[in-house]
Amino acid sequence: MMNEGVRNIKLTVAYDGTNYSGWQRQAEDTTLQAVIEEKIGTMVAEPVKLIASGRTDAGVHALGQVCHFQTHSQIGTEELKKGLNSMLPDDILIMRAESVPLEFHARYDARKKTYEYRILNRAEPDIFNRNFLWHIHYPLDTDGMSQCLALLEGTHDFSSFRSQGSGNLDPVRTVYRARIQGPRDGRLCIIMEANGFLRHMVRNIVGTLVEVGRGKRDVDEFRAILEAGDRGMAGMKAPPQGLFLVRVEY
Amino acid sequence: MMNEGVRNIKLTVAYDGTNYSGWQRQAEDTTLQAVIEEKIGTMVAEPVKLIASGRTDAGVHALGQVCHFQTHSQIGTEELKKGLNSMLPDDILIMRAESVPLEFHARYDARKKTYEYRILNRAEPDIFNRNFLWHIHYPLDTDGMSQCLALLEGTHDFSSFRSQGSGNLDPVRTVYRARIQGPRDGRLCIIMEANGFLRHMVRNIVGTLVEVGRGKRDVDEFRAILEAGDRGMAGMKAPPQGLFLVRVEY
Repeated sequence: MMNEGVRNIKLTVAYDGTNYSGWQRQAEDTTLQAVIEEKIGTMVAEPVKLIASGRTDAGVHALGQVCHFQTHSQIGTEELKKGLNSMLPDDILIMRAESVPLEFHARYDARKKTYEYRILNRAEPDIFNRNFLWHIHYPLDTDGMSQCLALLEGTHDFSSFRSQGSGNLDPVRTVYRARIQGPRDGRLCIIMEANGFLRHMVRNIVGTLVEVGRGKRDVDEFRAILEAGDRGMAGMKAPPQGLFLVRVEY
Repeated sequence: MMNEGVRNIKLTVAYDGTNYSGWQRQAEDTTLQAVIEEKIGTMVAEPVKLIASGRTDAGVHALGQVCHFQTHSQIGTEELKKGLNSMLPDDILIMRAESVPLEFHARYDARKKTYEYRILNRAEPDIFNRNFLWHIHYPLDTDGMSQCLALLEGTHDFSSFRSQGSGNLDPVRTVYRARIQGPRDGRLCIIMEANGFLRHMVRNIVGTLVEVGRGKRDVDEFRAILEAGDRGMAGMKAPPQGLFLVRVEY
């Protein structure tokens, strides 16, 4: 693509990930990237490549995913937003469209990301929110979970909570905030803010936290797992449907 | 079925109606009655006929539908509830199972029903609740809607709000309560309690109310529609996904 007349457009997008095989384009499956790229292509009358702050897995949701694409089109951002929202399926919403400098990159420039993980901790399920939370019917000790979360704050090697297939990226991340809210009406919300997250990091942390919450592990074991840098020690991976990418800051 | 050893079981059921062609069994489509009847049949090892307090339409939900069936099985009600919940899809939940006198009839004995209709009244949709509300992006005057609802309380001929195909039942019903709650964060909830409802009555009332809310009709017109007993005068039928059967009292 020649640079002449090229614009860079930043989109902030919410989606219900239930019916998608994750963000990243794949040959066979329906992905968020493929669906949104196609509608943008129609609006700007040329193929585009949509780059997100990071991929989300199948079944994971976003309240504020950020992505960008370059285009020769001179379409107004408000018109683009309205047009996309009229064409996209009703489980995807373009919240904002902005013109940004050509240098802006949704992935490389992300400074801080916030994730939320929602748990329903009571006997009865919530059938209307079944795609938006992890239902755990046994009692959880939130004090222990809260102490574990406090251990995560700061700069650490998070290899223990990284899934395989992540390549050989630097496993050190800085967590600015790791808290649990609730229980309120049986609802718990785990909030994590960091300068970046490794593959499945939030889900691996939440799965291990829940083992602490039900008394299978204690806070000292959680600390040992974090310090060991060994994925084999940590607990199960929490299911995808409780996870929301809340926002990305630049 | 011989009466010897026959029991009558009352079930209170919640369901997300999104993926069903309504309550009532039909030859081709997936209905709530058919799915639940089949699982009960497995649990009690004989075919059963499940009778609800009333049918709900495709896309309509229930927080507390009530139904009953007769069986020779001596299965405990708690075991029945747990077994059904383990077999039923995760958009249906048996909340209670009770042994009741043989005379109990879920439809004929219902004394009072409560419905809720949920509206989201703001510019932006809520993609995570899109199957559980009617999104109206133009402003609504809730004072006018509230005055109309007050007119409905009491005993009236509700023919104006009855859809065709209801047979020639008595169109007189007594509405004990008709109120609007909100707006709170753009959310409105219309609550109606009555001794019974005609076909599509809540959806036809809500559709006409919304026309008052947006200024297309006024309160006097609404009163005239109610008094006319003529379906042709009323407004559009509200879409199904905002409607919840909240509870049935006996």
